[in-house]
Amino acid sequence: MGTLDRIKIVLVSTSHPGNIGAAARAMKNMGLSELVLVAPEEFPSGVAVGRAASALEILEKARVVDTLTDAIADCTLVIGASARRRSIPWPMLSPEQLGEKVIEESGAGGSIALVFGREDSGLNNEELQLCHFHVQIPANPDYSSLNLAAAVMVISYEVRKAYLAMANQLSEDGQSGDGATNAGQAASGSQLEQNWDQPFASGDQVEHFYAHLERVLVAIDFHDPDNPRQLMQRMRRLFNRVRIDEMEMNILRGVLTNIEFNLKNRE
Amino acid sequence: MGTLDRIKIVLVSTSHPGNIGAAARAMKNMGLSELVLVAPEEFPSGVAVGRAASALEILEKARVVDTLTDAIADCTLVIGASARRRSIPWPMLSPEQLGEKVIEESGAGGSIALVFGREDSGLNNEELQLCHFHVQIPANPDYSSLNLAAAVMVISYEVRKAYLAMANQLSEDGQSGDGATNAGQAASGSQLEQNWDQPFASGDQVEHFYAHLERVLVAIDFHDPDNPRQLMQRMRRLFNRVRIDEMEMNILRGVLTNIEFNLKNRE
Repeated sequence: MGTLDRIKIVLVSTSHPGNIGAAARAMKNMGLSELVLVAPEEFPSGVAVGRAASALEILEKARVVDTLTDAIADCTLVIGASARRRSIPWPMLSPEQLGEKVIEESGAGGSIALVFGREDSGLNNEELQLCHFHVQIPANPDYSSLNLAAAVMVISYEVRKAYLAMANQLSEDGQSGDGATNAGQAASGSQLEQNWDQPFASGDQVEHFYAHLERVLVAIDFHDPDNPRQLMQRMRRLFNRVRIDEMEMNILRGVLTNIEFNLKNRE
Repeated sequence: MGTLDRIKIVLVSTSHPGNIGAAARAMKNMGLSELVLVAPEEFPSGVAVGRAASALEILEKARVVDTLTDAIADCTLVIGASARRRSIPWPMLSPEQLGEKVIEESGAGGSIALVFGREDSGLNNEELQLCHFHVQIPANPDYSSLNLAAAVMVISYEVRKAYLAMANQLSEDGQSGDGATNAGQAASGSQLEQNWDQPFASGDQVEHFYAHLERVLVAIDFHDPDNPRQLMQRMRRLFNRVRIDEMEMNILRGVLTNIEFNLKNRE
């Protein structure tokens, strides 16, 4: 199965150590852990440590090398970030396509390098030509220069998304006993109905609520059944857009009962 | 047509001005321009300017307000970033789903707020309850705390992706000549908001409704503000799941007024 362990983030000739720290944090947030620094201007650095926050161990085990060729020597797939269109067109990926390709490659046992260039000028032509693919983040043409750590964040995020989608697929296929299941749940946990803390009200309960609501609307002189003006339709359209849960249903019925009780009591 | 102009990034009680600058840069990279700061600790700030790089104009026209309620008063859709699972689950979106929903809403003429909390503790419960949806970036469970500007980057990136997908769809459909109407229709696809017969209620109107509802719940002895037992939270969670339209809002306010009137009349 695809794993995040064989994916390296390679930063080439980074000027600002703060960006190295922020990149490490972004990596750990997305479950990546292998950082390689090619000829950084200043490293180790206290500034990097500060910006790494709780991703310190990624800085501590970062490998520092002299050239990009050294950094990618053991890699089967190398993808370089490129901000602008080059004179020689190169196979291009979107960040999303990159995520899928990287997870596919790691699933096939490969090692992957994702390469990011200098803050001011990116990767040079020679470096770009060491890459199998280039990736371009679809930015505003008026200002396409992302902060280095921001670019690492977006690319790592797409890698994680592809990883979770794969894990999710596996668990749906019933093929996974282990880690994949958890990851899959995390990935699909975004739907409203999942993990709701209450059971949803049944159709019956909802109908009793509408009947009760109508009685109260009549009692407070808001609703005239002889001249209904679509009132109950509008109430149904409103409440049917929500899936009311049982506790909410109890609350709403309780409110209606209290209104009736108070009206009678003061008569 | 779905546009990026009606999308605000709202930062609540940001501690570090560098994060405000970096968020502004991320926004401009992704084509967003409206920044609202709720009670920032330090602003304006030279540090923010440095990190904003070429996104200075976003800082210059940023609006500073006292409360989140002020920031979202004119918004029809409010989505808050939430790092962790809450005691009361709330309707959740993935960043990708957020992108689609935001572009759909802007295509339908709505105003959108994307809300991010404090660096150390995020949005508090009261702030989260002002949101229609929460969004969670699918992070490593071992370290899910993203840098503020990194979170703004990921969310803005997904908004841009949805925007470009919509624009692309339009040009494939060959309808793109007169952008406005066509784009809006394509963007909103098969969703509820399409062709809705009423404008949706604004954040302001919804807040007035909650205040009125609370008064009535007290008057009918259903709600004891000294022992609230999450009642108003549950009411907010219920009604925020629906996008209440203006006619529904008028009906609900009318019902509340009639209850009050009847209680007084029979006293």
